[in-house]
Amino acid sequence: MVSAASTRPIAIVILAAGQGTRMKSALHKVLHPIAGRPMLVGLIDELERAGAARIVVVTGAGGEAVEAEASRETVVFARQTEQLGTAHAALQARDALADFAGDVLVCFGDVPLLRRATVAAMQARLHDADAPACVVLGFRPADAKAYGRVIAGPGGRIAKMVEYKDASDDERAETLCNAGPIMARGEEIFDLLARIGNANAQGEYYLPDLVTVASVDERASAVVETSEAEVTGVNDRADLARAEALWQADRRAEMMRNGVTLRDPDSVFFSFDTAIGEDTVIEPHVVFGRGVKIARGARIKSFSHLEGASVGEDCDVGPYARLRPGAVLGKGAKVGNFVEVKNTTLGEGAKASHLTYLGDAEVGAGANIGAGTITCNYDGFFKYRTVIGAGAFIGSNSALVAPVSIGAGAIVAAGSVVTRDVEPDALALARGKQDAKPGWAKRFREAMQARKDKGA
Amino acid sequence: MVSAASTRPIAIVILAAGQGTRMKSALHKVLHPIAGRPMLVGLIDELERAGAARIVVVTGAGGEAVEAEASRETVVFARQTEQLGTAHAALQARDALADFAGDVLVCFGDVPLLRRATVAAMQARLHDADAPACVVLGFRPADAKAYGRVIAGPGGRIAKMVEYKDASDDERAETLCNAGPIMARGEEIFDLLARIGNANAQGEYYLPDLVTVASVDERASAVVETSEAEVTGVNDRADLARAEALWQADRRAEMMRNGVTLRDPDSVFFSFDTAIGEDTVIEPHVVFGRGVKIARGARIKSFSHLEGASVGEDCDVGPYARLRPGAVLGKGAKVGNFVEVKNTTLGEGAKASHLTYLGDAEVGAGANIGAGTITCNYDGFFKYRTVIGAGAFIGSNSALVAPVSIGAGAIVAAGSVVTRDVEPDALALARGKQDAKPGWAKRFREAMQARKDKGA
Amino acid sequence: MVSAASTRPIAIVILAAGQGTRMKSALHKVLHPIAGRPMLVGLIDELERAGAARIVVVTGAGGEAVEAEASRETVVFARQTEQLGTAHAALQARDALADFAGDVLVCFGDVPLLRRATVAAMQARLHDADAPACVVLGFRPADAKAYGRVIAGPGGRIAKMVEYKDASDDERAETLCNAGPIMARGEEIFDLLARIGNANAQGEYYLPDLVTVASVDERASAVVETSEAEVTGVNDRADLARAEALWQADRRAEMMRNGVTLRDPDSVFFSFDTAIGEDTVIEPHVVFGRGVKIARGARIKSFSHLEGASVGEDCDVGPYARLRPGAVLGKGAKVGNFVEVKNTTLGEGAKASHLTYLGDAEVGAGANIGAGTITCNYDGFFKYRTVIGAGAFIGSNSALVAPVSIGAGAIVAAGSVVTRDVEPDALALARGKQDAKPGWAKRFREAMQARKDKGA
Repeated sequence: MVSAASTRPIAIVILAAGQGTRMKSALHKVLHPIAGRPMLVGLIDELERAGAARIVVVTGAGGEAVEAEASRETVVFARQTEQLGTAHAALQARDALADFAGDVLVCFGDVPLLRRATVAAMQARLHDADAPACVVLGFRPADAKAYGRVIAGPGGRIAKMVEYKDASDDERAETLCNAGPIMARGEEIFDLLARIGNANAQGEYYLPDLVTVASVDERASAVVETSEAEVTGVNDRADLARAEALWQADRRAEMMRNGVTLRDPDSVFFSFDTAIGEDTVIEPHVVFGRGVKIARGARIKSFSHLEGASVGEDCDVGPYARLRPGAVLGKGAKVGNFVEVKNTTLGEGAKASHLTYLGDAEVGAGANIGAGTITCNYDGFFKYRTVIGAGAFIGSNSALVAPVSIGAGAIVAAGSVVTRDVEPDALALARGKQDAKPGWAKRFREAMQARKDKGA
Repeated sequence: MVSAASTRPIAIVILAAGQGTRMKSALHKVLHPIAGRPMLVGLIDELERAGAARIVVVTGAGGEAVEAEASRETVVFARQTEQLGTAHAALQARDALADFAGDVLVCFGDVPLLRRATVAAMQARLHDADAPACVVLGFRPADAKAYGRVIAGPGGRIAKMVEYKDASDDERAETLCNAGPIMARGEEIFDLLARIGNANAQGEYYLPDLVTVASVDERASAVVETSEAEVTGVNDRADLARAEALWQADRRAEMMRNGVTLRDPDSVFFSFDTAIGEDTVIEPHVVFGRGVKIARGARIKSFSHLEGASVGEDCDVGPYARLRPGAVLGKGAKVGNFVEVKNTTLGEGAKASHLTYLGDAEVGAGANIGAGTITCNYDGFFKYRTVIGAGAFIGSNSALVAPVSIGAGAIVAAGSVVTRDVEPDALALARGKQDAKPGWAKRFREAMQARKDKGA
Repeated sequence: MVSAASTRPIAIVILAAGQGTRMKSALHKVLHPIAGRPMLVGLIDELERAGAARIVVVTGAGGEAVEAEASRETVVFARQTEQLGTAHAALQARDALADFAGDVLVCFGDVPLLRRATVAAMQARLHDADAPACVVLGFRPADAKAYGRVIAGPGGRIAKMVEYKDASDDERAETLCNAGPIMARGEEIFDLLARIGNANAQGEYYLPDLVTVASVDERASAVVETSEAEVTGVNDRADLARAEALWQADRRAEMMRNGVTLRDPDSVFFSFDTAIGEDTVIEPHVVFGRGVKIARGARIKSFSHLEGASVGEDCDVGPYARLRPGAVLGKGAKVGNFVEVKNTTLGEGAKASHLTYLGDAEVGAGANIGAGTITCNYDGFFKYRTVIGAGAFIGSNSALVAPVSIGAGAIVAAGSVVTRDVEPDALALARGKQDAKPGWAKRFREAMQARKDKGA
């Protein structure tokens, strides 16, 4: 035994060479998103939190796109140019880990929900007193189908690994199946992998044969069990939806444990990085994109869509509020129905309640943005800022043509098109004069009706 | 036996002293809402419908908030200052019911889905020929976990109540569990409660020991069974979501039985008081707040949000319609997408189809409100009314600055800001004159592009 | 045996005489929609795809409405004036099929999910070597309740059909139940039906007695099994919701198999005719009405509602986009939040991103429609077109009063009301001049506050 698990560094080999033809997609399978991030990136994030010092992603055809998305400090890439099986794929990481001293976990880019606790349990098992050669991850599926079976021996050791098609009836009755991931010591894993042969019907080098190779040396292997959910594989879009649903169910439960009310958990969708404070209430039918932070005591009403937004304490958002990246709501601010906020700060207690577009703006504390207000922030080439002072009152159906500044306490009359700055406490009007033509409507109706009757 | 069940009045003791730390909330547990109303209030509403003449709510720390929310004619409050167990809590109701002659049900503020039919069944059982001392409510959970078991004897009587931790293997194999609520005669329940001791590991006075105390007098107790759903307890926000889901499922089924189409029942959320007529169709993704009444034959399209609104026969609402309190739609009226209606009456056949805000307005029969119309009803201090006559036609993108009145049959030209009353059958125009600068756009584009190129 | 199944034409008798009182509806039961089309029409569509040469719909009271909805070339109607049972109903089709040579399937208008593959399987079984007199459709429900049982004999033949109430305990233990549909040869089915008697408690002529009548001639009958889902019957609105859910689940799975991402399949609702290309991504909470076609690589974001729309490759739709009939989006076009598009073509790369109504318009390639733009297409009598040239830029909060044309490359200044055509590359302005009253807002606030204080 080399050393205690807790002091051994860990490296990960992620097999991501299969493009996934059953996805029917131009996008590489492992780049399809779960919870708003490519599944491979989510797996890498979790493995880093599991303490992985180095991660080798083994790619195949289409690997450039994978490398572009998954590139980061801890990650290197190895290329498998021929598809000769999972053991062969894992071997491609040998050079990248030549100088690595620690334990190596081989896992799969399309089994994206693996958790750090499981990695830790596998590593602990690897360094148990009986010192197994490797640790296999097992699970007991509701329907064991054609999964390879793990025939368990005494003491959490493996008696035999057997492919379903080679299994006897007794072996098929075993409910413990092989989930795929395997961990072994970095000092020996690549030698073991290199000894795996391809004398099978497909002529492929299979990763689970690591157990067989080790047993030739009279080395036992061990199994650690986990849930079926954690080892869900993604081979088609139905699997992808299932993995998303499992991820969401976990996160919803976590949110509720943390003191967030989800009136209907199943209709609320989180991003991987959504952060919400206690006593915030989320009504049914709410969608979170990346980068949302919500303080405590806020209320997010139905049909709201938030992305890249920061929502302060006791804010009131929605229904039908669209918060886009850069929306920052101060304490007690209110964004109401059919309102879009982008790259805009709302001060404490500011309100934009109805049918409004606020883009590239700064709204002072306590300001009131009337229904139908539009910040005209774009001229087709550049974007310009609108600044609205504290306590200002923007009358309904106004257009604020940026760059423009409305002073603190100023009032913009309803229906105005404001193109020049407005001083603090001033009233700005910019609208046509009202004119009337008595009886015109009646004559118009009669004429139109006549035309309609003629047409009929 | 005192008298027949049907002639005996009934009083309820609701135990609501526990604040619910697992909710992680500043709000008292029993005040968290289910179907839009605090769960305790919902329970009281149902118990009043069960015929409860008097209701005693036993509160503890944080009781002021509970008292503020649950106060009404039938309800009195008792305070439990020390948390000494459920029997002790129930005893706090003794003074409040000192002069009460009838049966007393002790139930729980955090078991909020109890139904009147179950209360009636318990009372009927209490007055059966074998005259049990008390009636316990039992249920058979899918997973009996660590619930106390009800060991049933012959004739619906209880052989023994046993806590899970004290139960033998045989007793643990019993699937009938104690749901909590207990009913006994008012003439003796408080004496029985007073005899319960606290000689147990926790040193608490337990309500189910009522059965044991009665058996000392050779009085049998009885059990009435109900569904697991009805006795769902709420201890954390996941439980709260589950209780909400059970409530919604029941109400959706009831709505469908009553002749309402729910194309996707699971995505429609009702308030406790939603009332909908036959042959109304509700599309997927609709949310009802409090106080909505819908007549027959209406169509509520997807992504609509209704609260405090009254919708007439054959109305067409949504998609994306927001009806707020005081919205009253006459027969055949239509409120379309991205339209908000607040404190506004729409006459028969009136239409507001697109991107409109109607607040504090009165819209006559057959009037047509163009896309983008905004009633400017607020000046930052007061709200003002807009009156639109029958058959009027409000051109698109108009702002109506209240107080203002548009006469019957009048036309407002598109893009107008109307600040003065418009006579019946008149045309009102209030917009800028159109001006053109030939070739300006081309020169502008060239200049901007040049600036952009320089910047790059 | 007449001839091989594949060469025999097939006719269908659909029993649709029962109005469905448990629906509590003024609408005939078989006209309630599933996936956006009356269930009877959906069944007829599927049966036509199964190769049905002729379809006879047997109607009863309220048949006029059914005939109006289901009328088409392949369909004729027969009227059952008295409700004397299913065999009697089927006999009403005799005249309509007097000259028909082929096989006849009798099925039910309120069992709407029957599939062509099942019809084919029944026909194939009818012409198997053992030449059964008829083929019954069987299923094994999760809860067999009071369904009639099919007592199977050797070789897929039926030993006996038995109503639940007449069944022995052994017969009730049989899990194979009668789903209703029956197929027989056109040459003999009506003679067999005519021999069925009504000597039973209800005094009705029952269709399953066809098996009994055939056995009198020592002719065997056969059974073909299908899933419980396929033979779901619709008797009330809860059944209707269940049938809709089953249909949607099938279609969602099919969409995913075809390479469409559904991030949350359960919150997306398709119409019977929705067509979507590979690598299109549908976010949670999207509703499709009739007639939507989407090319590959589009992105349909949450809370979008599409009907009668055509969406090109790589388009970006939503969130909160409402596409109505006649919306045609060119490649890479973008329709954003709170935007309604009706009877309007958007050219390649055109954008309408916020709070806009485009009705009866033509938008050129690369044009940019600013936030809050409204096409004023209706004068209360007629609709008029708006034409916007390629590369035009419509400033925010503009109203375009149709008929009007904005030339290619023209710019409309924000807040304009455009009533006259704008030349290519010109700038159009049509808004009021800005005016200011310094200090007015402060004085107004003070006066209002004073009034408010006095009122309090």
